[in-house]
This record gives sequence, structure tokens and C-alpha cells, in this order.
Amino acid sequence: MGHAIAIDIGATWIRAAIISDKAEILYMSRVETRGENVETFRKSIEEVYYILPRDLIKGAVGVGIGSIGPMDLKRGILNPPNILAKNINLREIFSKIVNGMPTYLANDTVAAAIGEFFYGDGVGTENLVYITLSTGIGAGVIVDGEPLVGKDGNAHEIGHLVIERSSGIECGCGGIGHWEGLCGGLGIGRLAEAIYTRHKDKYRDSSLAKKISVSRVSAKEIYEAFYNKDPLAIEVVEECNEIHAAGVASVINAYDPEKVIMGGSIILNNRWLLDEISKRVDKYLTNRKPIFSITRFGDNVVLVGAATVVLKNFRKKERFRLI
Amino acid sequence: MGHAIAIDIGATWIRAAIISDKAEILYMSRVETRGENVETFRKSIEEVYYILPRDLIKGAVGVGIGSIGPMDLKRGILNPPNILAKNINLREIFSKIVNGMPTYLANDTVAAAIGEFFYGDGVGTENLVYITLSTGIGAGVIVDGEPLVGKDGNAHEIGHLVIERSSGIECGCGGIGHWEGLCGGLGIGRLAEAIYTRHKDKYRDSSLAKKISVSRVSAKEIYEAFYNKDPLAIEVVEECNEIHAAGVASVINAYDPEKVIMGGSIILNNRWLLDEISKRVDKYLTNRKPIFSITRFGDNVVLVGAATVVLKNFRKKERFRLI
Repeated sequence: MGHAIAIDIGATWIRAAIISDKAEILYMSRVETRGENVETFRKSIEEVYYILPRDLIKGAVGVGIGSIGPMDLKRGILNPPNILAKNINLREIFSKIVNGMPTYLANDTVAAAIGEFFYGDGVGTENLVYITLSTGIGAGVIVDGEPLVGKDGNAHEIGHLVIERSSGIECGCGGIGHWEGLCGGLGIGRLAEAIYTRHKDKYRDSSLAKKISVSRVSAKEIYEAFYNKDPLAIEVVEECNEIHAAGVASVINAYDPEKVIMGGSIILNNRWLLDEISKRVDKYLTNRKPIFSITRFGDNVVLVGAATVVLKNFRKKERFRLI
Repeated sequence: MGHAIAIDIGATWIRAAIISDKAEILYMSRVETRGENVETFRKSIEEVYYILPRDLIKGAVGVGIGSIGPMDLKRGILNPPNILAKNINLREIFSKIVNGMPTYLANDTVAAAIGEFFYGDGVGTENLVYITLSTGIGAGVIVDGEPLVGKDGNAHEIGHLVIERSSGIECGCGGIGHWEGLCGGLGIGRLAEAIYTRHKDKYRDSSLAKKISVSRVSAKEIYEAFYNKDPLAIEVVEECNEIHAAGVASVINAYDPEKVIMGGSIILNNRWLLDEISKRVDKYLTNRKPIFSITRFGDNVVLVGAATVVLKNFRKKERFRLI
């Protein structure tokens, strides 16, 4: 049935691609997300869109957008916490460029789940969760063959499950003890500080500890220190392995999926994490254990998913219609 | 369209009722659950069923069963942990008594959610969660106007969300740090022991502490002691209020409901708990706060829900068809 235009809106990059109805990426471009205000944001979108070859734009069956949230799905309004621009009206921005083509908007992780359902490891099952471990922790959920939406389009904010209530550690969203607040790409720095503060004496030889006393450390720095056998980093990664397992178990107990497909930079860069989670998850599980995998689409899973929303038909498709 | 026969299978009681298409209870009976083996269990079902007036059985449009789980919904097999009888084949048992009437089986909390959706506080919304705080903690979830089922019919085991991972407290299911394991009707006794063990000196004047040193205490004993201002009970109830809030917040972040409707003996006997949860939930929330209420059907919510599955039409109805 042809090909679709896919847009992946992230806090750092906006990417655009042409994707075939076999989920092949025929062309891809990206620009930095200039989020200073709505106008610069609009220019980033227009720029990345018009890099795509004119003839492929013309032949496309539609446009699919997978975006960071939170969003008001019905109104097409975006309010990402990590971007300065507020109340970004995607319907308005895209109306001017898509030339009347049918256009769909989904949360990035929901798009990813829909991509996995039709083209990835989810083929053949009615119940799957796609989980991203990245700067944020999020999911897209398909139950009984349908993606969950919810009252505001957020029936999947699993990074904000409370996993360690009494930890007192605050998430970027302000919530206490959230999975993302403890072990997301930003949260893990706070967890490292909490562990360091608990037993300062123990980490006298840790170079990560020295960094912590100066400024907040990133997930990348922590995992690098872990590979260099830094004693504090080993403790932080150990605790995160366990928290990831508890989080994934909560997801399984909440949605009863047959497949759990994982993606996002933290697991794509540390693929052994999948086995750690799978090994540790049992002690938190009630529901029957699903099959675990890492997305075959790597960094492109949101692009593939956004195109899938355009290319495939499913009952709730119209809920994602933007234009 | 007439009336339905409703059966509520619990670990202690099996109840049967005749319920009108206006959700009025026209007749109700109950017997003790004799769960020693499949044969005694079958006899309990037959007994409670045949207490119902013969003419009302005859005029019924069908039979709805709401049952404790876990169950294999497709095969109609029940395996409740608190009953000795194993692999109870409900399809076989009911085939012999329903005389060819269409018969539906749902998890008790899922039935309750369906009842709330069509007859209770869920009327007019597409997204609701019914949560029971009782011996167990469970839910029924309706997202986008459809009850969630999942691969094995368990896409709602929210009592088994991990809320205090590092507490080490084991749930009845074996999982660590589960909401139900900490504050369900059975779990709360273990939480009381853990709090007592942490600061024994503090509770020298607590009569609850004296009971704890002899045997496990029940939720009823803890709340009674709380009303008598027992210092240990006050601490346990305070911690549970907070854990309930964190659990309810996780549910809201996972399913994005517009209404949260609560039931079960713990909240029906301590109705102030709803305000406590509603007040405390904010600090754990990411998704927009829903409206909270206590079920108007009280102890009868599962009976009303089981009848609703028979009386109303919805897209996934056939997934609950037993006979």
C-alpha cells in the first residue's frame, strides 16, 4: 500500500523518515530540537520535514508522529517538561506542511508498541508492553489487541509507578519513589547521591563519588564507572537492576502481557540488562511470566511505530488522528 | 429485558441473587464456601443456587458469575489460594445446573468494574478503575470503554504492584514489597510485626504489640486498636494510609482513569480512608487526578457486576462466556 512519513519528536532530536509498508526505512533525516519557543520548534519540524525527498513526500499515504509527552491527544497539544516552549500546537504546525495528508499523533512509546505489534516481536500476540529505559521510563501497552489510551492518552505512565515509597527520592515530575525518579537516565544520578550519602566511608576510593560531590552524574557516567569496577557504581547498578526488575514485574502484574519488548538508550547500550531483569523479576511476579526481548528496531522503533499507525488499520486508529 | 441470576464466589461465602435490569436485588441467598474438595465446593454452589425461587430462575435471561481468582478464564478453571480444592472446573459444575442458559464468568473485581460502568459511579465515563481493599487488594479496569482482560485474564493484579521494594515483606503470592502484602487484610498483620520489631521499646504500652507477640493480628484487630488510640496501631494505620495512596497513585499512572471507585471490607468499614487516600495521593501522581468514590453497591457490588455482564452488551462480552 505504499509508504508513510514518520516523525519522531524527542527533547534532543527531531527525526523524519520515509518508511515502507514492510517497515523498511527508505530515507531518514534529523535536526536538533530547538525548543526555545514555539516558533523555533516549528522551524525545526519544517526543516526536518523538507529534507525528505520531494517525490517520496508526494507519494506517501500519510504522516505518523511519535512524540515525547505529556500531550493532550485530543487537542494535539504538547507540553514536554524538558523543552522551554509550552503549549505546542502540533495540529496547527503540521496542518501547514502535510498538504491535507491524513496525519496521526501518538505518544512515542505507544507508537513503538503499535510498531512492535504489527512488525516486531509482538506479531502473533494480543498482549504486549513496550518499555523504554532512557532519560525517562515509559511504556506503550496493548491489551486484548488494542493500544490503551485512557482519559488523557496516558494509560501507560509506568515510569511513575511507585517502587520505593519510603526512599523519599523525588522524580522529575515531583512524585516520590517513582521508578523513573530512581533509575531513569536523570533519576539514577539522584539514586547514586542517596547511596553515596548513606555510606560515604565505604566509597573513599570511588572516582564516581568524587564526581558526585561536584555535580549530578549522568547514566552514561555511572555505567562507564561500573564497567571500570568503581565500587559505588557497582552498588548503584546493582540497586537499579533490582528496581528495574520490580518495575517490570509491576507492569506485568498490571497488564498481563505475553511479550515484554524493551528499548531505549539504557538497555540498548547495556544489553546484558535484559537477562538481569529477566532473572530477578520472578521474586516480584504474580502473573505468568511473559517472553522478554530487546526491540529489533533499535533507535528507530518510534519512527517505525509512527509509520505503523498510518500504514495499518486497527479499531482505535481514529483516536490518534490529528489532521 | 428481564432479570439475571448472579453468583458471587468468595473464599468464605458463596452468594446468589436475582437482579433486575435496573440493578435492583430482587432476591438473595448465601451459603458458606465448603472448599475442602471439588465435590464439597460443587455442593455449595448447587445449594445456594437452588435456594433461589424456581419461577425467578426460570424467567432469567442468563447467569453471571463473579469469582475470586486466579482463574483460567478461557477454560473456566479456578485455583484460589485460600481454598483447599484445586482445579475447580466451573464450566462443568454450572453446565449441570443452568439448564442451557447463557452463563458468563468474570474475576470478581472485573465484574464489579463492569457493574460500576453500567449502573454505578462509572456511568458516563469511558475510563474507570474499581479497587477493592479487603483480604486481598485487587481491581477491575475499564480503559477506553472496554474491560481489560490480558493474556490469562489478569490485566488488573494491582495488589501485586511493588510499592516498597526494599521492605523485604513477602506477599501471600510470594512476591516482595507488594501493596497487598503490606496492607491487604492478611498483609497488614505482617506490616504490624515489621513496624513493631523495628522499635519494640516504643510500643511498651501497646496492647496490639502484646497480641503480636502471640500470633498474627487481623486487619479488624488493628483498626479496632487504632480507634482505641493504641500507639502501634496508629503507626501501622498511618503507614498503610500512605501505602494505599502510593498504590492508588500507581494505578492512576498506569491506567489514566477518570473515576476511581473503591470497595471491599477495609474501606466499607473505615470510610474516612477514602479522604485520607485522596489527600495523600497527589505527591505520587503524574497523571491528572480522577474523581474518587466508594461503591454505592457496598457488599453487593460483585453480585450487581456479575448480573451486569449478563444484562448488558459490550464488545468483549464473549470473552467472559462460560457456557
